[in-house]
Amino acid sequence: MAHSDSKIKVGILGASGYTGAEAMRLLLRHPSAEICLLTADRKAGQPVADVYPHLGGHGLPDMVSIEDADWSGVDVVFCGLPHGTTQELIAALPAGVKVVDMSADFRLDDPATYAEWYGHEHRALALQKEAVYGLTELYRERIRSARLVACPGCYPTATLLSLVPLVKGGLIDADDLVIDAKSGITGAGRGLKQNTLFSEAGEGLSPYSIGAHRHAPEIEQEIAKAAGRAAEDIRVNFVPHLIPMSRGEMITSHVRLTGGARAADLKAALQSAFAGEPFVRILNGKDVPQTQMVRGSNNCVINVFEDRIPGRAIVISVIDNLVKGSSGQAVQNMNLMFILPETLGLEQVALFP
Amino acid sequence: MAHSDSKIKVGILGASGYTGAEAMRLLLRHPSAEICLLTADRKAGQPVADVYPHLGGHGLPDMVSIEDADWSGVDVVFCGLPHGTTQELIAALPAGVKVVDMSADFRLDDPATYAEWYGHEHRALALQKEAVYGLTELYRERIRSARLVACPGCYPTATLLSLVPLVKGGLIDADDLVIDAKSGITGAGRGLKQNTLFSEAGEGLSPYSIGAHRHAPEIEQEIAKAAGRAAEDIRVNFVPHLIPMSRGEMITSHVRLTGGARAADLKAALQSAFAGEPFVRILNGKDVPQTQMVRGSNNCVINVFEDRIPGRAIVISVIDNLVKGSSGQAVQNMNLMFILPETLGLEQVALFP
Amino acid sequence: MAHSDSKIKVGILGASGYTGAEAMRLLLRHPSAEICLLTADRKAGQPVADVYPHLGGHGLPDMVSIEDADWSGVDVVFCGLPHGTTQELIAALPAGVKVVDMSADFRLDDPATYAEWYGHEHRALALQKEAVYGLTELYRERIRSARLVACPGCYPTATLLSLVPLVKGGLIDADDLVIDAKSGITGAGRGLKQNTLFSEAGEGLSPYSIGAHRHAPEIEQEIAKAAGRAAEDIRVNFVPHLIPMSRGEMITSHVRLTGGARAADLKAALQSAFAGEPFVRILNGKDVPQTQMVRGSNNCVINVFEDRIPGRAIVISVIDNLVKGSSGQAVQNMNLMFILPETLGLEQVALFP
Amino acid sequence: MAHSDSKIKVGILGASGYTGAEAMRLLLRHPSAEICLLTADRKAGQPVADVYPHLGGHGLPDMVSIEDADWSGVDVVFCGLPHGTTQELIAALPAGVKVVDMSADFRLDDPATYAEWYGHEHRALALQKEAVYGLTELYRERIRSARLVACPGCYPTATLLSLVPLVKGGLIDADDLVIDAKSGITGAGRGLKQNTLFSEAGEGLSPYSIGAHRHAPEIEQEIAKAAGRAAEDIRVNFVPHLIPMSRGEMITSHVRLTGGARAADLKAALQSAFAGEPFVRILNGKDVPQTQMVRGSNNCVINVFEDRIPGRAIVISVIDNLVKGSSGQAVQNMNLMFILPETLGLEQVALFP
Repeated sequence: MAHSDSKIKVGILGASGYTGAEAMRLLLRHPSAEICLLTADRKAGQPVADVYPHLGGHGLPDMVSIEDADWSGVDVVFCGLPHGTTQELIAALPAGVKVVDMSADFRLDDPATYAEWYGHEHRALALQKEAVYGLTELYRERIRSARLVACPGCYPTATLLSLVPLVKGGLIDADDLVIDAKSGITGAGRGLKQNTLFSEAGEGLSPYSIGAHRHAPEIEQEIAKAAGRAAEDIRVNFVPHLIPMSRGEMITSHVRLTGGARAADLKAALQSAFAGEPFVRILNGKDVPQTQMVRGSNNCVINVFEDRIPGRAIVISVIDNLVKGSSGQAVQNMNLMFILPETLGLEQVALFP
Repeated sequence: MAHSDSKIKVGILGASGYTGAEAMRLLLRHPSAEICLLTADRKAGQPVADVYPHLGGHGLPDMVSIEDADWSGVDVVFCGLPHGTTQELIAALPAGVKVVDMSADFRLDDPATYAEWYGHEHRALALQKEAVYGLTELYRERIRSARLVACPGCYPTATLLSLVPLVKGGLIDADDLVIDAKSGITGAGRGLKQNTLFSEAGEGLSPYSIGAHRHAPEIEQEIAKAAGRAAEDIRVNFVPHLIPMSRGEMITSHVRLTGGARAADLKAALQSAFAGEPFVRILNGKDVPQTQMVRGSNNCVINVFEDRIPGRAIVISVIDNLVKGSSGQAVQNMNLMFILPETLGLEQVALFP
Repeated sequence: MAHSDSKIKVGILGASGYTGAEAMRLLLRHPSAEICLLTADRKAGQPVADVYPHLGGHGLPDMVSIEDADWSGVDVVFCGLPHGTTQELIAALPAGVKVVDMSADFRLDDPATYAEWYGHEHRALALQKEAVYGLTELYRERIRSARLVACPGCYPTATLLSLVPLVKGGLIDADDLVIDAKSGITGAGRGLKQNTLFSEAGEGLSPYSIGAHRHAPEIEQEIAKAAGRAAEDIRVNFVPHLIPMSRGEMITSHVRLTGGARAADLKAALQSAFAGEPFVRILNGKDVPQTQMVRGSNNCVINVFEDRIPGRAIVISVIDNLVKGSSGQAVQNMNLMFILPETLGLEQVALFP
Repeated sequence: MAHSDSKIKVGILGASGYTGAEAMRLLLRHPSAEICLLTADRKAGQPVADVYPHLGGHGLPDMVSIEDADWSGVDVVFCGLPHGTTQELIAALPAGVKVVDMSADFRLDDPATYAEWYGHEHRALALQKEAVYGLTELYRERIRSARLVACPGCYPTATLLSLVPLVKGGLIDADDLVIDAKSGITGAGRGLKQNTLFSEAGEGLSPYSIGAHRHAPEIEQEIAKAAGRAAEDIRVNFVPHLIPMSRGEMITSHVRLTGGARAADLKAALQSAFAGEPFVRILNGKDVPQTQMVRGSNNCVINVFEDRIPGRAIVISVIDNLVKGSSGQAVQNMNLMFILPETLGLEQVALFP
């Protein structure tokens, strides 16, 4: 990999996790970025090929511990660290380094909510104030000028893209949102857990964190903003399920229509909200979103369906949790932060079958 | 397989489908039943081992066409035929033959509803009046004396077991039932369809028949009975999803509590309703139902969870769609119809991993 | 579970592993055995439902540590412990307790070979001499009178059943055995390993321990006996592959014919060797063994095929690695050791689809 | 998609199959090619989004029947038609149109061998003489000047890349090649077959066409050339297995060493043969090829291992059957035929997890 002064120099912190690997996959083919630093404390000293064999042979630097990182020349870091560890680390970075954070550390505006859900006080309150929520299609302008972007969780990304325009438009009841979520198993990360072993998760289906998942307050925060209400006023039903597939995520939202709206009005609102967006696609007619449509791509695919219950509708959106739900959206935000075309490095067509 | 006068002689009609195969699996080890007839029009003349290699070597009779069936000595038939074909056929059976129907042909009380959803007039109206809905735990007494039992669909089975006691008890609002359903791919049958090919369905997730699945009116019919209301008054939200696993089904019901009920009250009602039931298990504490718990068994596993939205709860139930959702429940009903212990032939422990 | 004096009292040591769980599944429905003791050091004090949710509600005893085990009344133990730990433990058991060992500890006759492959000296040499190799169909008579039976590994079971009669018959060259093995992921156990995570093992295929798997010397020992030669004279090619499925194992043996034998002669030899065997099935014609045929059952299914290279043939055998490859064969051996019908508790029909 | 005179205009014949879809995926992002024609007789008139939802929104032309194809301006066609149908069709194409054939129609030099394996006389003998076998790394120079390139089958690609240099180098015995092959289920195509349904193929493992697969003569033809012998002199053992994954293919070759060669010599020969090749990677040390390393990429990954049997070795190679095994190699060949950098449009990093 020839280093070039004209390319953005990227460091990936926490490169041994799945979001780190996915960031490597995307950035290796990004025409205006190059990876100059990879940190992974427990894998320090190892070549990438030992940690991710499919990434061998691409000339990537070896993994180093965060203490041994050489920040000189680094323009931007992608953080894929476990929650809680990112805050102090980012606070200590050289001032000129931009940050695209893929962890949960800076997503919640309210430090008290953070403390409640993550079990410890926030450790970088000043940075929290500065952080911009990185749901690109909704916060594009603020992201362009941000130093620290807090990329949304995968569930909030797919949920908010499909619901925020409807709440903003006064088409659905923000107090009656039933969000039934389904995710592939990469969403649980690369850590060793019994329930993500092949023989445990395969050929089976499990809900988890029922009514108590950490992405719920993040969704509520943004739904509240869209509704012009206080975050603590909004409570959503949110039930995630683990699906026996590696990638992909689907949000099935069961919504109550307001003001005489019909399913077709919801669809029109989404079409209008996302007209011209390169990565959001509202399907035609009754075409059904499937995770197969977005595997490996940065796309979000959405459609709206009539419910049998009068006055209700069903909104379905799908993303690849590791791309638009994490590392792809991170690259999209990096592009904005460096005044590059937003689609650069993100033009992969979905991999099917 | 030695024929014995003391055993129930069973014919399986439509034996080449998955419900037929599953009925064979269960009946082959049933101590008081023996299979004497297998029909499958397109496979007529073939040994079972050619149609289902895993069932070879068990001494089963060859498949015959329905026209060539020898009904002499047949005590009961299991029907696993496509909807619409069962009605006239059953009407023409010898009067002494009991019928456990696994198709959709006799589930709906109202012929007009049947015609609306299945696209043709009902062809055996007299039999329809006689048919008993075969959700064993709810209609046990009537099943005992029935000649024709219409086994419920897989989705209604898991849904109604978990919701009927709550509606009956006045604990949840029958007008606000959001039923998010997930099924393994055997639910789509053995017919050749592009969307059930391994390379299409694997590693992916698809909703289907959104708000328009044929199991919705069946659920509404029984919820209405539980609520003491007319079937046409009840409309449920029902969205099924195809999950990349062969067997297993989960119903995630998002319900609105009524009369000050709390999640714990729902659980207590279910515990009370199913106390002593051999095949229904209400989990302890916050233990989470998973389809892995019931694979290959006739069990239904249920639990209730608090929602983040005040006044709502989440009810989750799982079954094996081919066992309790079809052929297992059919055997359970046969046992009742022949005054046998209800658990006979159904004591398999779930297969995990 | 009512204790009955007439039933065999079984303890399962290492009950938290997959072979332990599978032994529980089978023994729970064994008409002449009952489980009275479950040990699992790291899960000591936990109810079975916490360790294996699908086994909840069956009245099994809680897990205890091996130190706290109450051996009074125990007739037989199933050992599913990691290799090396079983030897001293078994040596310390009350003399009257029979042992069905599912670990690798007593499979190799030669202590030096054991030490070479397992990295430590054998710790119970006297017991080793006493142990009978538990490949039921080959050592039935000796197993009947054994106190300690060392059940074969899963790979040796499927390999030896299909090859030993051919070597004994002088039909194939024992010096040119190419054994290409494929196993589902339960074969790697329930321990937490990165390569058995769903997202790592799913949608992929990996060979492992190429030319160096611990089951190779076990296969060589038995092939040597069949050939009437010394174990150290026989070397087999053995390459196992990890297949993205939970259960099931296939051995594709590429063999060189000797003495003018043809594929049909091999098949005839297998048919003759296994005539009347309840759990070994030689397929008709060119029917192809598939792991789907044996899932959840104790069967081994075999067939022989002509090769394109003159003078060679292909022998294919399949088993469920957790049943005939481990706990099912253990039950089969227990039945022999207690003079019970060999098929007791093992009559499950394969679960398909 | 802006049409540009400077881009190669590509037609894809048989675009509704998996190789057609994969060619679309790759060519949509090829900087020097554009798709101007898609034929699919049974899908004629349909937009791509109806046939392959993941390819909707990319501005591709609708599918047309082959009769309605407009050949004006077409520079090259990719043929993904069923075998036998391509021959006359290609013979009738305008003379200036180059052809990259992904079918089996022109792979076999000997028309008699073709007729034997494909069941009918070859229908374009003149073209057969002209066709160049499209295994890029072995026939690069001839491909550059070819008008008709016959891309190898997926199995021959992975097999020959790993074995031809060894046969050429006199390091292994061409008369004792045991080739145990494993493929994901996309290899069976998109046609509706019972054995490729999710519920049949999932959680299971099947060999097929044992000793009689159509790729065997293709492998023998090329091994014979490498050995400097007549094609009819070479017979290989070739046993393919269907693996429950969508993509990926592994060839486990069990080979006999000649002339005192050792495993390390084989590896050195491969390293030498493929030095500088962009798409062939020989792994370091004992690193194990896994299909996960190449999913979605055009790479072939190989390594060599010592066998336990003296004088033997094991060679393992993996590819993505739809990329290097089909459409990717087709694009690679197109690049050569149009004097473009060989890697153009093929630089995707493997998709893992």
